[in-house]
Amino acid sequence: MNVQAVLFDVFGSVVDWRGSLIGELSQWGAERGLEADWTGLVDAWRGAYAPSMDRVRRGEQPWTVLDDLHRASLDRLVAQSGIKGLSEADLDWINRGWHRLRPWPDSVAGLTRLKTRFIIGTLSNGNVALLVDMAKNAGLPWDVITPIDLLRHYKPDRETYLGACQLLRLQPGEVMLAAAHNNDLHAARAVGLKTAFFPRPTEYGPHQSRDFGADEAWDVVAADIADLASRMGC
Amino acid sequence: MNVQAVLFDVFGSVVDWRGSLIGELSQWGAERGLEADWTGLVDAWRGAYAPSMDRVRRGEQPWTVLDDLHRASLDRLVAQSGIKGLSEADLDWINRGWHRLRPWPDSVAGLTRLKTRFIIGTLSNGNVALLVDMAKNAGLPWDVITPIDLLRHYKPDRETYLGACQLLRLQPGEVMLAAAHNNDLHAARAVGLKTAFFPRPTEYGPHQSRDFGADEAWDVVAADIADLASRMGC
Repeated sequence: MNVQAVLFDVFGSVVDWRGSLIGELSQWGAERGLEADWTGLVDAWRGAYAPSMDRVRRGEQPWTVLDDLHRASLDRLVAQSGIKGLSEADLDWINRGWHRLRPWPDSVAGLTRLKTRFIIGTLSNGNVALLVDMAKNAGLPWDVITPIDLLRHYKPDRETYLGACQLLRLQPGEVMLAAAHNNDLHAARAVGLKTAFFPRPTEYGPHQSRDFGADEAWDVVAADIADLASRMGC
Repeated sequence: MNVQAVLFDVFGSVVDWRGSLIGELSQWGAERGLEADWTGLVDAWRGAYAPSMDRVRRGEQPWTVLDDLHRASLDRLVAQSGIKGLSEADLDWINRGWHRLRPWPDSVAGLTRLKTRFIIGTLSNGNVALLVDMAKNAGLPWDVITPIDLLRHYKPDRETYLGACQLLRLQPGEVMLAAAHNNDLHAARAVGLKTAFFPRPTEYGPHQSRDFGADEAWDVVAADIADLASRMGC
């Protein structure tokens, strides 16, 4: 394989969005004496993620970055759940929880090793500001953050995968998408990218229903990002 | 000052394009027994930089990334200078010299200190592929590379400065441009960015005619990037 760059799906693949958000909100609520089903809120919030992007993808809503999609979903879910007394500053802080997600235990070490031989970057639906904050907070050593904001398409639109390759001036076959989600890899392979899968079987907690293993013979199948680094010769 | 991000001009401000290219080409030519005025070629190549971007800026040429502007200028200058026997691979290697520029001695240490308190990034006319390669080669620890390729404007167009702020979801007054070029800072200040100047008095070698000092009372005037880090409290 003549791979020059390894680009990662981020939410779920590199960082543990569910554990991070539930942990942070539970502690924050307890400190304020706020009773709420934070776990339910987080699961419903992530549940709103794909539908909100689909509305943009189908043109039912003009281009909107993920920070703003997250915030609109949060406002609706807070109202529905009956949580009272949250200020604008509180809601902004909660929404920026996506900027503070924690990496899985192998992520930073694995990325650091991959970076010695490859360009490593994001190919995430997260906007640049979100991913820059996350990288600084979590120590993710990206060489490049694909600016989905300016590509104005969400994965799995082909424009995202091909736009990332064009920005790096690489052929699709020189770029690998690494992800814990088979559907993301299907879309990347369909436009010529190389593919690497590793499972994150606890991403959705008790609600996980898929992506326990590889659905297809991806170019690399690894146990996690550290194992991916080993399989890529790093 | 409520600065959240410090974005750098790169060519001349962070890396020594002239010393790097002359040094590399002189050695490469000597190894191949190729007699040429490499210093003259490098100075003429850089001389073609602003005019080539101006043609794009005025709409006389469709959007073209810097790698391709560099290559077109190189091909013309090589033909004019009478250098014979360069293959396509040679010309591609020479053109990628811009991807391999060396930092000034204080750059990496200064950026590394600034990164502890600020988002640090590029605001350069260089395309993403060029700047990613340069960062990996030179050890420049950017948090973000502003994708000029997708903004489709060259500095000093206002769309570049404002586009970088929008991508970071920051107000112009929360973003600082740091550069060794007064004209870049003038354009940044005109649209509300904070400004930092430091001189690179040997950038153009014996041809340097300006930018020995600050033309205006910039928000910060420093001796170099390490001194800028100190003045910014890092």
